[in-house]
Amino acid sequence: MTQTSRQIVLAEIPQGKLSPDHFRVTESERSAPGDGEVLLKVLLVSLDAANRAWMQGATYRSALSSGDVMAGGALAEVIESRTEGLKPGDLVFADTGWQTYAVVRGARLRPLPRLEPLTHLLSVYGVAGLTAYFGLLECGRPAAGETVVVSAAAGSVGSIVGQIARLKGCRTVGVAGGAAKCALLTTELGFDAAVDYKAGDTRRALRAACPDGIDVYFDNVGGDIFEACLFNMNNHGRIACCGAVSQYDGAAPRSGPRGVPGLIVTKRLNLRGFIVSDFDEQRDAALAQLQSWVDSGELKVREDVLEGLDCLPAALVGLLAGENVGKRMVRVA
Amino acid sequence: MTQTSRQIVLAEIPQGKLSPDHFRVTESERSAPGDGEVLLKVLLVSLDAANRAWMQGATYRSALSSGDVMAGGALAEVIESRTEGLKPGDLVFADTGWQTYAVVRGARLRPLPRLEPLTHLLSVYGVAGLTAYFGLLECGRPAAGETVVVSAAAGSVGSIVGQIARLKGCRTVGVAGGAAKCALLTTELGFDAAVDYKAGDTRRALRAACPDGIDVYFDNVGGDIFEACLFNMNNHGRIACCGAVSQYDGAAPRSGPRGVPGLIVTKRLNLRGFIVSDFDEQRDAALAQLQSWVDSGELKVREDVLEGLDCLPAALVGLLAGENVGKRMVRVA
Repeated sequence: MTQTSRQIVLAEIPQGKLSPDHFRVTESERSAPGDGEVLLKVLLVSLDAANRAWMQGATYRSALSSGDVMAGGALAEVIESRTEGLKPGDLVFADTGWQTYAVVRGARLRPLPRLEPLTHLLSVYGVAGLTAYFGLLECGRPAAGETVVVSAAAGSVGSIVGQIARLKGCRTVGVAGGAAKCALLTTELGFDAAVDYKAGDTRRALRAACPDGIDVYFDNVGGDIFEACLFNMNNHGRIACCGAVSQYDGAAPRSGPRGVPGLIVTKRLNLRGFIVSDFDEQRDAALAQLQSWVDSGELKVREDVLEGLDCLPAALVGLLAGENVGKRMVRVA
Repeated sequence: MTQTSRQIVLAEIPQGKLSPDHFRVTESERSAPGDGEVLLKVLLVSLDAANRAWMQGATYRSALSSGDVMAGGALAEVIESRTEGLKPGDLVFADTGWQTYAVVRGARLRPLPRLEPLTHLLSVYGVAGLTAYFGLLECGRPAAGETVVVSAAAGSVGSIVGQIARLKGCRTVGVAGGAAKCALLTTELGFDAAVDYKAGDTRRALRAACPDGIDVYFDNVGGDIFEACLFNMNNHGRIACCGAVSQYDGAAPRSGPRGVPGLIVTKRLNLRGFIVSDFDEQRDAALAQLQSWVDSGELKVREDVLEGLDCLPAALVGLLAGENVGKRMVRVA
């Protein structure tokens, strides 16, 4: 009997807003791993705003084309291995794409610990947690007593950024959409203040929430919120540029934020873009620190786990609309 | 007999383009220095694009108001001193404003060497030279073999940035306005290539002039040229944000460059704004290095010296229009 993999294909590159109609489900014959490859069974697919950016053009990875199996990172189990260092039963994080089985090159994969809950391997011990950790500490370099602002603060990365900033003794302000998310930030996640960007003048609300100005801004969104923060930055402030989710789901933006580069000069700001793999060498130390905070209860992990491969398109569309709190992922098996 | 100072007053804050009509000439009685102050005779007034930015609002100094003596840095001679460490005959660089005599606080002034020509104290050994030196080497951090692009490349700072980059073994590309300036860059100042931003598609011309992409961009101008460079930056490139002269002479810009912050993330760029006083502690070492390059003939100094206090308004308007090559200054006495 031929074994098949169920797949979700990007049927059409969106020109404007992404919708589930841009995808279709298909089945194809499972291929066998070649030399240096592994066959993986996909367990949990990570949903990330960057998934949408890959449809716009080349980023730190090549662009997606229509007809491709939709790309995405996932926690997966090795079924068959033709690469050294990996054996059946090992857990790995890999770019499997949106499908139930995937054959990928094994060279850069490494086995993950089988800890509980497994979902943490995609949230706090995965890209989200490491992105928060390195972006804040290496790019933002906050000092105790400084004010740290993070956007998409109820999201997978933002919710961890704010908590690490608090652990470092900073005043922590989150920007999020809607009163419910803002309440969550201050009541459950320990933020000192929250700004609802859907409630009106963000620049003014930030000024009120940050009476001493902003020393570190961790930017996940770009656009108007980036601009509002820029105008509230203190001299010698740092901006960690992690993403621009406000710009992903639509046509390419016609213009960028005002104050660039004028305010960068007059305020002597430092802006640094990064992706998590830039810090691979410090990965183990970061994971040990994150685990210690989680184990002690100082760092709370929020996750949003949906069920079934077929819900992936709607899950991504919803993520881009900001409907999730914490790390969104889809359980496939 | 009462002694007077001839002054140029900013009669009106410009809303759009600056013109000489925004200024008027006046005479006022020379005041005597109080305790801790010095009376200065102004010798050479420095013209800087930042002079225009001060009319737009607070920057790293407070904003100018209509009726103020126009602010500006100058090389000046101490006539009378009521501060320790300064005596008549000493040369200093001070914010005297546009006038023949000025009383200023002496605390932060230090005597300059009386070297020849004195004009070098405003160009290569002044703010322009130090800005080029620190901005390129501390913010840009170029490595030999990398490609360095500088805008306003025929100007006071840019002409020095390009030459230091070449001395550090970089491929050096200047952006300037007009064929004459571009020719000067490559034939006299040792640039490897020049891009005339008045000649059409700057982004495409930069791509042709920088076949290996841009590793370091020293930005003096902001706006469209900033955007064109941003799109040609290599991964892990650095942008030294020194000024935004394209944005100074008019109403506040309605939008910023496209690609911010998206390209900062995907290319993992580092942008750093600075002003020269951020590096005061390294000043003496920088001056020694600059002097050694000038003495050996490796660094050529271009200056544009105009005569007479009354030509200052036209000199600034012309500077903003890009009519000068090298450091522009006005000899007052």
